[in-house]
Amino acid sequence: MTYRIDALQYANWNEKIFRQMREGGLDAVHVTIAYHESFRETVSNIEKWNIWFENHPDLIMPGRAAADVAKARESGRTAIFFGFQNPSPIEDDIGLVEILHTLGARFMQLSYNNQSLLATGCYEDEDPGITRMGRQVIAEMNRVGMVVDMSHSADRSTLEAIEISSRPIAITHANPHSWAPALRNKKDDVLKALAGSGGMLGLSLYPHHLKNKSACTLEDFCQMAARTADLIGPEHLGIGSDLCQDQPDSVVEWMRTGRWTKQIDYGEGSAAVPGFPDMPDWFRDNRDFVNLETGLMAVGFNPAEVAGIMGDNWHRFFDKGFGPHQPIGD
Amino acid sequence: MTYRIDALQYANWNEKIFRQMREGGLDAVHVTIAYHESFRETVSNIEKWNIWFENHPDLIMPGRAAADVAKARESGRTAIFFGFQNPSPIEDDIGLVEILHTLGARFMQLSYNNQSLLATGCYEDEDPGITRMGRQVIAEMNRVGMVVDMSHSADRSTLEAIEISSRPIAITHANPHSWAPALRNKKDDVLKALAGSGGMLGLSLYPHHLKNKSACTLEDFCQMAARTADLIGPEHLGIGSDLCQDQPDSVVEWMRTGRWTKQIDYGEGSAAVPGFPDMPDWFRDNRDFVNLETGLMAVGFNPAEVAGIMGDNWHRFFDKGFGPHQPIGD
Repeated sequence: MTYRIDALQYANWNEKIFRQMREGGLDAVHVTIAYHESFRETVSNIEKWNIWFENHPDLIMPGRAAADVAKARESGRTAIFFGFQNPSPIEDDIGLVEILHTLGARFMQLSYNNQSLLATGCYEDEDPGITRMGRQVIAEMNRVGMVVDMSHSADRSTLEAIEISSRPIAITHANPHSWAPALRNKKDDVLKALAGSGGMLGLSLYPHHLKNKSACTLEDFCQMAARTADLIGPEHLGIGSDLCQDQPDSVVEWMRTGRWTKQIDYGEGSAAVPGFPDMPDWFRDNRDFVNLETGLMAVGFNPAEVAGIMGDNWHRFFDKGFGPHQPIGD
Repeated sequence: MTYRIDALQYANWNEKIFRQMREGGLDAVHVTIAYHESFRETVSNIEKWNIWFENHPDLIMPGRAAADVAKARESGRTAIFFGFQNPSPIEDDIGLVEILHTLGARFMQLSYNNQSLLATGCYEDEDPGITRMGRQVIAEMNRVGMVVDMSHSADRSTLEAIEISSRPIAITHANPHSWAPALRNKKDDVLKALAGSGGMLGLSLYPHHLKNKSACTLEDFCQMAARTADLIGPEHLGIGSDLCQDQPDSVVEWMRTGRWTKQIDYGEGSAAVPGFPDMPDWFRDNRDFVNLETGLMAVGFNPAEVAGIMGDNWHRFFDKGFGPHQPIGD
């Protein structure tokens, strides 16, 4: 069985997008439900998803374990797995790790662009590595089965998280820095350490992470995938599209500035281009996953490797990362 | 006029202690109202103080500006100034600086023992200095008149806070590391930078900060004060007793572990001595400030210097640090 999984989306969710997931054949999507939200605000976002699950039982279902991906496939739906891009939902409270796992969270970034209580973000000048609380929280995430995600973290923090975590970690959405030198993209030594410990890299389609940004070609993207496979092995690659479909630019402002500054912070953008960039024309939305599959074949990946990158590698990782868990409704 | 001011207490407040403040001649006390509390929890702590102000209008009054110290003196009361030992009350929200200043907060430590969103605490292995959010928050604290307090922060963060802050900062409760090498005590270069920018050091009576801890003598303490005055000038010295009167040991556990770990952290204590240490017999509570005055005279400070250390230096600092503010009730 081959699955199709996207390990990161943050769309302006509605029925149209859920239908596009079905058209695109997505069996599972890891969705961001918190950027800077507190615990209580995160719970409100889970409530929104509960309403979508209630209203669209033919299109989507809650994802808690790898087995839910198969269940979604069998019933023609997309399994939705929750994650956070910042540890803000656990606030300063390690006990919230288990609470949020019980509520469905399966991924948590230890930091977004800035310093967090746990780790350093890629926009800080200095990276002291994992903090005292960070070490405690990684152990707790390992215990309950919540995956450490270092997509937006700085290099030293990422390397230390790989070292400290007793379970493989993920970089759900980023590309190699050698291909596109965005601050967020990952250096070769980080990618090698990630794969060396059994971790996964989700290749990103967000234009600020692409060579030539919105003008990046499918071939160039897939050749980058091939070179990355040469570096760390194709079995450690997946897709983490970072699709932010139909979001207003106010959302990217929120992502960048949250509540931490009264000034404007353009993040990966600039004063001239402050908003969301246009997606490449070969990856507009969930319906275009087939283009990735075609493109990967064209650059020489064999069918098993393509199946791995399109979803089977994430499925295997989900199976190991989320631990023993009784799927809801079973 | 000479004032008597204590720049840090965290007692198990009640009428007995308020009466002892009066017996000790305290015109003003900076009280800690948050260690790890969230914004909402901090507001609850302010509510508790509002009840005490309502129930004991003959003993205590809210302190908001330096003028309130004089008002308290004239009316035979003690002015209570609020502060935080951690930036947890502002959570991840810079807008809460002004909100909490409006509610009475006049001091905020940028970090407690661990890494915060703003700065590094003295128990972390690494100190990367002030974070991106930290720079923004210092500017906001400078704007509204909330004093940056680095009592529990690590060295580099402290030096950077001194450099970045446009207004003098405080170390409300600590002693020189050269006298008692507690992790929390401050190195000479930090003390010199503090004083060089107009800052204040509150000398601590907390036994873990004292040479020989609970057995420290009054003479030894006062000789340390004299040597520190030689180093940075007597006008930069005050008292920050760190008096934690009548607190159960569960409170020191809360201070140390908050919600960041599921393990025990002994902080300045140890498995053998996990609780609050005994105070020196010459400084049991607020009634013993007169002993400090006598002791400082005995080691050679002149009367003006003693008056400065016992309160006038803090009063001058309050006047500069809290900015233009209309005292409540005027």
